[in-house]
Amino acid sequence: MTTRINLMNDYNLVAHERVLDSLQESLAVRFEGYGADAETARAKAALSERIQCPQAAVHFLVGGTQVNLTAISAFLRPHEAVIAPHTAHIATHETGAIEACGHKVLVHESPHGKLGPNEVIASVKQHTDEHMVKPRLVYLSQTTEYGTLYSQAELRALRAVCDEHDLLLYIDGARLAYALGSPHSDLTLPLLAELADAFYLGGTKNGLLFGEALVICNPSLQADFRHLIKQRGGLLAKGFLLGIQFNAFLKDDLYLELAATANALAAKLDGGLKALGYDFALQTETNQVFVIVDNAALPKLHEHLMFEEWQQLSSEQTTIRFVTTWKTTESDIQTVLDLMRPPAAPLASD
Amino acid sequence: MTTRINLMNDYNLVAHERVLDSLQESLAVRFEGYGADAETARAKAALSERIQCPQAAVHFLVGGTQVNLTAISAFLRPHEAVIAPHTAHIATHETGAIEACGHKVLVHESPHGKLGPNEVIASVKQHTDEHMVKPRLVYLSQTTEYGTLYSQAELRALRAVCDEHDLLLYIDGARLAYALGSPHSDLTLPLLAELADAFYLGGTKNGLLFGEALVICNPSLQADFRHLIKQRGGLLAKGFLLGIQFNAFLKDDLYLELAATANALAAKLDGGLKALGYDFALQTETNQVFVIVDNAALPKLHEHLMFEEWQQLSSEQTTIRFVTTWKTTESDIQTVLDLMRPPAAPLASD
Amino acid sequence: MTTRINLMNDYNLVAHERVLDSLQESLAVRFEGYGADAETARAKAALSERIQCPQAAVHFLVGGTQVNLTAISAFLRPHEAVIAPHTAHIATHETGAIEACGHKVLVHESPHGKLGPNEVIASVKQHTDEHMVKPRLVYLSQTTEYGTLYSQAELRALRAVCDEHDLLLYIDGARLAYALGSPHSDLTLPLLAELADAFYLGGTKNGLLFGEALVICNPSLQADFRHLIKQRGGLLAKGFLLGIQFNAFLKDDLYLELAATANALAAKLDGGLKALGYDFALQTETNQVFVIVDNAALPKLHEHLMFEEWQQLSSEQTTIRFVTTWKTTESDIQTVLDLMRPPAAPLASD
Amino acid sequence: MTTRINLMNDYNLVAHERVLDSLQESLAVRFEGYGADAETARAKAALSERIQCPQAAVHFLVGGTQVNLTAISAFLRPHEAVIAPHTAHIATHETGAIEACGHKVLVHESPHGKLGPNEVIASVKQHTDEHMVKPRLVYLSQTTEYGTLYSQAELRALRAVCDEHDLLLYIDGARLAYALGSPHSDLTLPLLAELADAFYLGGTKNGLLFGEALVICNPSLQADFRHLIKQRGGLLAKGFLLGIQFNAFLKDDLYLELAATANALAAKLDGGLKALGYDFALQTETNQVFVIVDNAALPKLHEHLMFEEWQQLSSEQTTIRFVTTWKTTESDIQTVLDLMRPPAAPLASD
Repeated sequence: MTTRINLMNDYNLVAHERVLDSLQESLAVRFEGYGADAETARAKAALSERIQCPQAAVHFLVGGTQVNLTAISAFLRPHEAVIAPHTAHIATHETGAIEACGHKVLVHESPHGKLGPNEVIASVKQHTDEHMVKPRLVYLSQTTEYGTLYSQAELRALRAVCDEHDLLLYIDGARLAYALGSPHSDLTLPLLAELADAFYLGGTKNGLLFGEALVICNPSLQADFRHLIKQRGGLLAKGFLLGIQFNAFLKDDLYLELAATANALAAKLDGGLKALGYDFALQTETNQVFVIVDNAALPKLHEHLMFEEWQQLSSEQTTIRFVTTWKTTESDIQTVLDLMRPPAAPLASD
Repeated sequence: MTTRINLMNDYNLVAHERVLDSLQESLAVRFEGYGADAETARAKAALSERIQCPQAAVHFLVGGTQVNLTAISAFLRPHEAVIAPHTAHIATHETGAIEACGHKVLVHESPHGKLGPNEVIASVKQHTDEHMVKPRLVYLSQTTEYGTLYSQAELRALRAVCDEHDLLLYIDGARLAYALGSPHSDLTLPLLAELADAFYLGGTKNGLLFGEALVICNPSLQADFRHLIKQRGGLLAKGFLLGIQFNAFLKDDLYLELAATANALAAKLDGGLKALGYDFALQTETNQVFVIVDNAALPKLHEHLMFEEWQQLSSEQTTIRFVTTWKTTESDIQTVLDLMRPPAAPLASD
Repeated sequence: MTTRINLMNDYNLVAHERVLDSLQESLAVRFEGYGADAETARAKAALSERIQCPQAAVHFLVGGTQVNLTAISAFLRPHEAVIAPHTAHIATHETGAIEACGHKVLVHESPHGKLGPNEVIASVKQHTDEHMVKPRLVYLSQTTEYGTLYSQAELRALRAVCDEHDLLLYIDGARLAYALGSPHSDLTLPLLAELADAFYLGGTKNGLLFGEALVICNPSLQADFRHLIKQRGGLLAKGFLLGIQFNAFLKDDLYLELAATANALAAKLDGGLKALGYDFALQTETNQVFVIVDNAALPKLHEHLMFEEWQQLSSEQTTIRFVTTWKTTESDIQTVLDLMRPPAAPLASD
Repeated sequence: MTTRINLMNDYNLVAHERVLDSLQESLAVRFEGYGADAETARAKAALSERIQCPQAAVHFLVGGTQVNLTAISAFLRPHEAVIAPHTAHIATHETGAIEACGHKVLVHESPHGKLGPNEVIASVKQHTDEHMVKPRLVYLSQTTEYGTLYSQAELRALRAVCDEHDLLLYIDGARLAYALGSPHSDLTLPLLAELADAFYLGGTKNGLLFGEALVICNPSLQADFRHLIKQRGGLLAKGFLLGIQFNAFLKDDLYLELAATANALAAKLDGGLKALGYDFALQTETNQVFVIVDNAALPKLHEHLMFEEWQQLSSEQTTIRFVTTWKTTESDIQTVLDLMRPPAAPLASD
């Protein structure tokens, strides 16, 4: 059982060796508490430099839900609401954390996990008076929950709509590194900082023990933010653990290297499966592969692989999700391809 | 302008004469505060008798949004959510009041403003683990926001689903009197008390200055409810104003008489318009008539009538809403019918 | 029992005759909903004129707790807190309504129900970093819960401290009319509008059925306020009921006349009791008299009067509270004085 | 500067070596997400065994504020409040996190950081009706924020009051290990589990990178708790990091060994300072020493030591706090004693 290849998700390992080593090397050091230490300052400076946004405020937190709820509840007044795709993590998999902070999440159908300007405009137009919440913040994810990517042009179009309707643009970057490290993406960190009011760069799903770097680009949203982190339970006593890890993460662009490795292996898996004749529910753009398999093949796959059954399509077929990481190997991919060859064709498939 | 017939809504008059008279007659009386007075006790007893549910707790509040938010937030734990039709007042026209109390509202498409067992079951089945909110309360309105009615059979089916999945059933009764006073309804107050965990009987839209009677049928939901009313700002200092009004409302079944009058006039309007060849967006079951008119006819209608343009259907047609009340007259209805005859007859257009 | 003179509180009558008459006279009128009607507009204009603060926004609501929670939660960000005297209504008798909206109330001992600049400064100095809430709004009441008054000099001193520390100044005016109608007060409506960021003028305790007029003087606090009223359940469907009542309230300065009557009778009661040798727990400045009586006298007093036992001072003595209203009569006062003469005279005890 | 001895706090080191080694040894392992892994299960079992409370539910979280706000908001209905000493961490240093979840914290003066039965009873008696919050949960800390300890007898007395008044008893155990490892304490883990409805055993301040083990002893408080952790942002994706660390923490009672080391050194420091004639603001019972020094001595102390100035007592004297940890050495203590000898001897000052 333990020898099954794990393609279940990208947060099933303790951390990348270099990250843990950096903690090991700090064992004898005494640090200031609550992120007031030198390592954290250095990590913030390193990230700021990459972002090229001198006015940005950087905060390190533990976990994406914590970042989302702290930031969004800090940015909104009580009657203001979030516009999001129906696939948004905050809408589906954070146990109503945004509502628990008092705010409605207005969702729009989004087949590929992506929100478009038309949906945003529709929300704004529907909410016309004081009997309705007031849309104020657009939430999207890069990469999306479906592994897809916003292009620079798409993000610029959303920004234009936000500007026109006085909306904030917030980007959930739990898997942002995979986007930054993808050949399919033309969005860099400086561009994100230019276009978003706030975004975060996630570390948990790309080699850190834990840690997400929230970047608040818009100065009007920065005041007293540490109060809000503390109030929501997110101010780590040993904040230096985040600083140390992010220094390792950013050093020699480790975060990009890890993401690129995972992306390349996902691309290889995608290509191999395509060659074997498989269909896909979504285009593979980062480290997630959504491939359609015959239900009859599932038991054998489960025997050798760990993966998620994403959506049952019919009594015949299911979309399954493979997630690669920096720890995935070429050999793993080859094993999967061997295992799935031929898909279900005994000899006479249609 | 002031002589236009007002069919805009059912809360545009101060109150029914008998209601205001009852206040006038109490001018010299000194009352206990906060609903601890004898008039309130008498009104609660009168309502309890009609409900035939001795274990029920009755509370009088000001306004439907206040009732909904106080009750729902009292009944739920932080991670618990509401299941509602997409037309639900709490989902669309209460400025996110339920979310402001911390709870997500899960909505389902409901063409006639009504929720069915399948939608409820779908919500329950979608929310399977701790990453998602936990559906706990089914919200529906009788009559619905579209003027339609749940039958006894429909409500029993919903109750059965609630029992099976440990859900509470809550009924928004802002216009409940119109349902109770409708020949199309087979749901009585005792049946509502039997089937719902809580419901309210609204007075604001049927002749009171203000006032809604919340009935909490389920004893496990009753504890400390006055604390919660006070905390949400709903405990009226002069609570006796609610008691006095509800006594007038219940005396000789005034509430039913007023509703029946309005319903009968709506039926007459509906019948007359049908005879004139009009189509309807929804069936007329209570005091709301949703009729489809040519956009070309709108200016003339607005000149003589006050009503709401409910939904633009096309560049040609719009659904408009007429709302009758106890104050609407036969003559009003006749005027409307005269005005709308013929609907779009080419020969006789003016 | 019913013939006991009622000095329990100032909200035990339906309303002043002229207020109820104004509703009676409007029975045939059709109004716009939710406060968009002409009567409400007229009442706002009338109040604005008295306030002499053209940039102020006026909103009519039902009930002081509703006003307090709606305004304070609208004005504060999540980590911001209220500074208040320990006697503050929001701190003691609103069931944690402010906390239920997410905000801490920082209280200071205040023997006479009044907060001073030193207390405010102490709060600011104690809250120095992100581990603590950030004081942002000073709450006080005029008249206070103890019937006492802030002078113009005292309020100016508080305003200066607020300006220095970037604090908002909010005044709960549930009994503001009694202050405005008191010879002991040098604070007018225009001065309040000049010194406070927001305040309200209560009607419930001075002759209205219900109704408080919230005045938001500071333009930066005005945005989207109707959204917030609706979200907290305070937007009355028949908002015109508030407009009609406030027009009656302001006409010929009825509100001042009623308050002055009550104040004068309280002064008379105070003077009479002083002449009889009674001591007082607090100075009588408005319509509340806090007199110290022997416990032995309580049964007889309760037999003939309705009043509140405010605080038991010892096994010998208790402070009791008499509250006068516009409906209290000279004869009532004389009866009380007769009843309490002599306070503890051994010869004449019954 | 970096060679100053650090007695500032007990969370300034990455972690104990054995804790970090346990992570290092797990680098190649793939784990289930969100705490569903075998290491976490093993850690829960190990803790449950020590607690001897089979019905208890154990959850691992990151950070004390997160634990406090998640647990307390899970246990209370909206109108229910917390009773706490005025020194309580939730009352002073968590930025109003409990209020942000909607609940009032009622505080009592507590000179030694400890709450007694009389304070609890006073709170209950003061809150008599629906205009006031309802006290429902008693919060205390073991060890307290002042380093002091509740005895078994004291805790039993509080439990009795809680039982009498239907109150929950919750114990913040950020520094519980120091209590358990103190010769001054007669409270064991099984006794805590018997007497408290819930408590937590903190790891962050005693050698872990991070991590607190919440123990919910009362089965009626356990339902859906993972939903609530997730909603508040506290469900760590890599939950196994907590399981691994707690296994190291509990193995061979490492947590007690570390605490006992720190306590012994604090006792030695306390004894040495007493011998030198110093006075103390509080009795030294665990790893915190609150000693009173002359203000004139502060510069020199700061030059060689890192510590907190706890409270300025006068223009002459200040209470300072020394905190020892498992990493503090005998030599450190000797250095401090040498430095502080003699306390204020005029002849021998340098």
